Amino acid sequence: MNLVLLYPEDLVAPDRACLTGRRLLHVREVHRAKVGEDLVVGLLNGNMGKGRVLRLDDGLLDLALSLDQAPPAKLPLTLVVALPRPKVLNRVVAAAASLGTARIVLLNAWKVEKAYWSSPKLQPESLRQQLFLGLEQARDTVLPELRLARLFRPFVEDELPGLLGGGTGLLAHPGTDAAPSSLLMPLTLAIGPEGGWIEAEVQSLVNAGMRPLDLGPRILRTETALAALVGKFF
Amino acid sequence: MNLVLLYPEDLVAPDRACLTGRRLLHVREVHRAKVGEDLVVGLLNGNMGKGRVLRLDDGLLDLALSLDQAPPAKLPLTLVVALPRPKVLNRVVAAAASLGTARIVLLNAWKVEKAYWSSPKLQPESLRQQLFLGLEQARDTVLPELRLARLFRPFVEDELPGLLGGGTGLLAHPGTDAAPSSLLMPLTLAIGPEGGWIEAEVQSLVNAGMRPLDLGPRILRTETALAALVGKFF
Repeated sequence: MNLVLLYPEDLVAPDRACLTGRRLLHVREVHRAKVGEDLVVGLLNGNMGKGRVLRLDDGLLDLALSLDQAPPAKLPLTLVVALPRPKVLNRVVAAAASLGTARIVLLNAWKVEKAYWSSPKLQPESLRQQLFLGLEQARDTVLPELRLARLFRPFVEDELPGLLGGGTGLLAHPGTDAAPSSLLMPLTLAIGPEGGWIEAEVQSLVNAGMRPLDLGPRILRTETALAALVGKFF
Repeated sequence: MNLVLLYPEDLVAPDRACLTGRRLLHVREVHRAKVGEDLVVGLLNGNMGKGRVLRLDDGLLDLALSLDQAPPAKLPLTLVVALPRPKVLNRVVAAAASLGTARIVLLNAWKVEKAYWSSPKLQPESLRQQLFLGLEQARDTVLPELRLARLFRPFVEDELPGLLGGGTGLLAHPGTDAAPSSLLMPLTLAIGPEGGWIEAEVQSLVNAGMRPLDLGPRILRTETALAALVGKFF
C-alpha cells in the first residue's frame, strides 16, 4: 500500500479523515506509523497529498489531510480481457488498475469456462476491492471503469466499434503480423483466455476494427501479457 | 501448463518418456488427455515437439516423442531483482522465466528484510520448480541462469560490470530521465525492492555502469514492473 486510499465516507471534515478496518490495520502493522508522521494519502477520484497521523490505536486512524496534488493521468487505454479463472481474476484486475488503465472490460469467450461467471469474485464489491488495491499500489486515486460483458457477440458487434473511439485496437493472437507501425490513441488491447481466441472470435474482433498482434513465441499468463503490452505501447 | 517439460530422467528411450507425479496429475485432470492424443512437450534444455499418449492412468503417463523443434531463443536480458518478499518471490521467478529472461539475479538491498533470505522458497529445488513452471507456461525448455547475490556491494562492484557485457544497463528509479535513446544488447534491467533503492545503492549501480530509468508516476509490483520493462524493450 503505497497510498492510503480515502473514501468520501471517511471524511469527518474537508481536512480530516477517520479510518478503521483493513487500512487501519495495514498502517499499524505494515507501515508501523507513529503519531505525527505523514502518510501518502489520496481521496477516491480526487486529489492526493499527505495525511498527518493525529491518532492511531486499535480502533481508529485519525488523519489531518493536505490534498494538493492531482493524481497521475490515466492511460488512454481500454483493456478487453477474456474472463480469467477466479484464482487469476483478482491479480489481473488489480494489475490493470495499477498500470493506469482507464477502462477494463471482462469479456466472455468460447474457452472461458461457464462456471467462472458464477464466481463470488465477480461481485461488484469484490471487484472494487481489487481496483482499490491496484490504486493503493500505484499511488493513484481514480477508479477505472470496469464492465462485464457476459455475451461475446453483442459486445463485440454493437459496443466495441464505438469504444475504439477512433483509436487503434489490437488483439493478442499468435501467428499474425508484428506490431502495426502507426498507432492512434486511445488504444484498445484485447487479451484472450487460456487456450486463446477461436478463429470465429478473431474474425469478429477484426470485423469490429481490431488488428491482430503477435506477442512472440511465448505464451504468457494474462497479467504478465497485459503488463508487457502496456510497457510496449506506453 | 502449455508444454509438458520432460527431464532427462523421464526418458526410457530416446523417443519414449514415462512421467509420474505433478505432471501426470496435470495431464489427467486439467488437460484431460486421452490415449492417442498429442501433447506439446519439450526436453529440459533441449528440443520441443509432440508426445503421443500411449498410456495414461493413475500411475503413469507414457509418451512416444517426436522432438524436432528448437525452443524459442532467449532474450538477451539479465534481470537484477532486489529479493522480493517470499509471497511474491515465486511469481517473480516464474514470470521472469516465462518472459524468456536469460539470467536472473536475486540481489540484496537495504530495504530487503533480512528474514527473506532465510525463506525455504530460496532453496535451489524450490527455485527450480518456479523456473520449470515459467517454462511450461511459456512453451520454452531452456532454464535461465539464476543467481543469488546475498551481498550488494561485492556483486555490484565486482561482478555487475562484467555481466553488462558491453550492453546497456538500466535501473528502475523514480525522478530520473526518460528512457535512453540508444540501447545496446544485451540489456540488464535492475528492479528495486518495495520502498525502492536507497541513494547509495543508486550511486553504486550507476558507478557499475547502469543508467537510471523513470518508469512513470505509478509504483508497480515487482512482477508487473518486470513484464512492463520486457514489453518496452523487446
